Amino acid sequence: MQNFIFENPTKIIFGRGCISQIGQEIRSYTNKILMVYGRGSILKNGVYEQVSNSLKASGISSVELSGAKSNPTLSLVYEGISLAKREKVEAILAAGGGSVIDTAKTIAAGVMAEEDIWEYFSRRLEIKKALPVFTVLTVSASTSEMNQVAVITNEKTHQKLSMRSLCLLPKVSIMDPSTLFTLSREYTAYSAVDAISHMLEGYFNNTEPDSLLQDRIVESLIKTIMEKTEVVLKNPRDYNARADMMWATTLGFNGLATAGMGQITFPAHMIGHSMSALFDIAHGATLSMVLPGWMTYATRKNPAKFARFAREIFMVREPNDFKAAVEGVQHLRSWMSSIGCPTHLQQCGISGGDVDRIVTNASATAKAVGMEEYTEDVIAGILDRCR
Amino acid sequence: MQNFIFENPTKIIFGRGCISQIGQEIRSYTNKILMVYGRGSILKNGVYEQVSNSLKASGISSVELSGAKSNPTLSLVYEGISLAKREKVEAILAAGGGSVIDTAKTIAAGVMAEEDIWEYFSRRLEIKKALPVFTVLTVSASTSEMNQVAVITNEKTHQKLSMRSLCLLPKVSIMDPSTLFTLSREYTAYSAVDAISHMLEGYFNNTEPDSLLQDRIVESLIKTIMEKTEVVLKNPRDYNARADMMWATTLGFNGLATAGMGQITFPAHMIGHSMSALFDIAHGATLSMVLPGWMTYATRKNPAKFARFAREIFMVREPNDFKAAVEGVQHLRSWMSSIGCPTHLQQCGISGGDVDRIVTNASATAKAVGMEEYTEDVIAGILDRCR
Repeated sequence: MQNFIFENPTKIIFGRGCISQIGQEIRSYTNKILMVYGRGSILKNGVYEQVSNSLKASGISSVELSGAKSNPTLSLVYEGISLAKREKVEAILAAGGGSVIDTAKTIAAGVMAEEDIWEYFSRRLEIKKALPVFTVLTVSASTSEMNQVAVITNEKTHQKLSMRSLCLLPKVSIMDPSTLFTLSREYTAYSAVDAISHMLEGYFNNTEPDSLLQDRIVESLIKTIMEKTEVVLKNPRDYNARADMMWATTLGFNGLATAGMGQITFPAHMIGHSMSALFDIAHGATLSMVLPGWMTYATRKNPAKFARFAREIFMVREPNDFKAAVEGVQHLRSWMSSIGCPTHLQQCGISGGDVDRIVTNASATAKAVGMEEYTEDVIAGILDRCR
Repeated sequence: MQNFIFENPTKIIFGRGCISQIGQEIRSYTNKILMVYGRGSILKNGVYEQVSNSLKASGISSVELSGAKSNPTLSLVYEGISLAKREKVEAILAAGGGSVIDTAKTIAAGVMAEEDIWEYFSRRLEIKKALPVFTVLTVSASTSEMNQVAVITNEKTHQKLSMRSLCLLPKVSIMDPSTLFTLSREYTAYSAVDAISHMLEGYFNNTEPDSLLQDRIVESLIKTIMEKTEVVLKNPRDYNARADMMWATTLGFNGLATAGMGQITFPAHMIGHSMSALFDIAHGATLSMVLPGWMTYATRKNPAKFARFAREIFMVREPNDFKAAVEGVQHLRSWMSSIGCPTHLQQCGISGGDVDRIVTNASATAKAVGMEEYTEDVIAGILDRCR
């Protein structure tokens, strides 16, 4: 076990009918907020109405910023910062999934930042203060509802980068699994892949050799997410299955499952982010293409761990570690494909010249964040394994 | 999944050498504290010195209350409340295990309480405020370092009761696994039994039939604690094994593993508390005697769940649920015995008349907390299964 600090004061209010509580939770902080949401799904599924009614009942006035999309953009963040400053709001409410929450977090920090907010991503400046953030979660994948991270795409520079700070942790997050009933098959599957990928990056890319405790927790969460994904793809309104997916996703990336594992790196996310920044491909889709390829690349460095994954998750019986590991990757790719996710670059129309651009983009990020292993050659090799 | 609220802002600073940080953590709250500890083990193992040096370096003055013992007493709590009021301290630091922390929490609440503090236990009044509590953990069993609970024994009335409140959550807990190197074999084993019992009570006594996610997490934690207990009993200075036990214990009872499982009851703890209140038997020892007996009693109500436990934890292959469940209890009892814990009442000198007193005491608690199932007859039947 490596030394660690775990601190996560986000209050989670979980369950059916809980959205009505958002107003009173915000009320103890302020009565003037900016509400951020996406491209209108909350208008159709009743979440907008539930939130509005709750705000009204608690006497909270709000201004709105809509239009946050997958791979949320810096331009929308700038718009939100101007609006928040102009309207003198004192908190940000995100009603949506990870993209909406990341937009809200970045606005919350941007309002109080001394430098341009993008500097905190690109130059990795430290975020020291932010307006309080509240969330009503409607897509469960990023764990942004209970972590310190925000990821934003700069459309001009074609960079998708992250920042993290304790002050970006939401104060309160409302998680009502029934909001997921109307989530499309496609995004349900992407959510599962995103959640599983977060956990697997920690599982494989840590600096603690003796991580049995954390490994078992991650395996428990991944097995549950995989099983329940299959259930909800058959019956999108299965409350218990949606609830298990939602809570397992939060537990997988709120800092608990990786506490004690030392430094975690996210190479598959890094390459996926480059794909999204360049071609605006959904985050989950980039991961279902990249993760198995990255695993094939990484297996030879630690075949025992990859074999453990294969045996624990897919009941692979092969005694040879290397062969078992290879089987595990095949199973994972097949499973991702079975739930409708792309697992080969061609499926998203990525061809030769595009790969070169991804390599250049991702290797620049790798250099900036000190992941020296990921040279242009290595990244090109990984992408070759994703074809 | 049942609706739930999860909120646990305790900051955990985990690892070797971390005790030196306690002063600066307290400093942002106050510079005048009451430090509570036990019966002197921290004077021998260097923890007292580390804490004192850190307080001194941060300019924090402290008054001290020592003497907290297993089954911590109300009389010491009263002494602490008087001292804390007289000295006008603004925070309480607990340096020890669950008994010390529970004493500190109760003092913290007692200083600010309008009624006599015992009323909050006996009449279940709501604790609304408390001084901030900090902990330096030296016995890892109760999870008091990261939960809302305090358990205190009233020596006069022979009651061992608990209270819970969000404001009893410690602000900061320092967990250095090397403080466990000098923990006796006996208390190491009791700690493991206590941690496992907390989790098993939630595992078996909840109101959510579909708890696969939580079950898997609990099974992961229990397996790890059992394996690592065996390691540290052979080598008490195995840092990684101590660390895994310490963190798994915290994760098992900080609210996460039971979130979504509805109402949890603690019948084995309830009966064990009566034993401790009447005969001052160590908490872990009461559980190693009572838990297997209680499981034998409860098996017939839900053989499938008890069979799952047997199969997941002890690899029992028996296909019949009831038979598998019985085998599981036998395995658990043997394991507890193998690590040196008493598993039959006689081993702690409890005989006929004593059992009657336990029955009376525990059934009174059951009535007070609304656990109607646990009549005198039922409790007597359970204790018969512990002989």
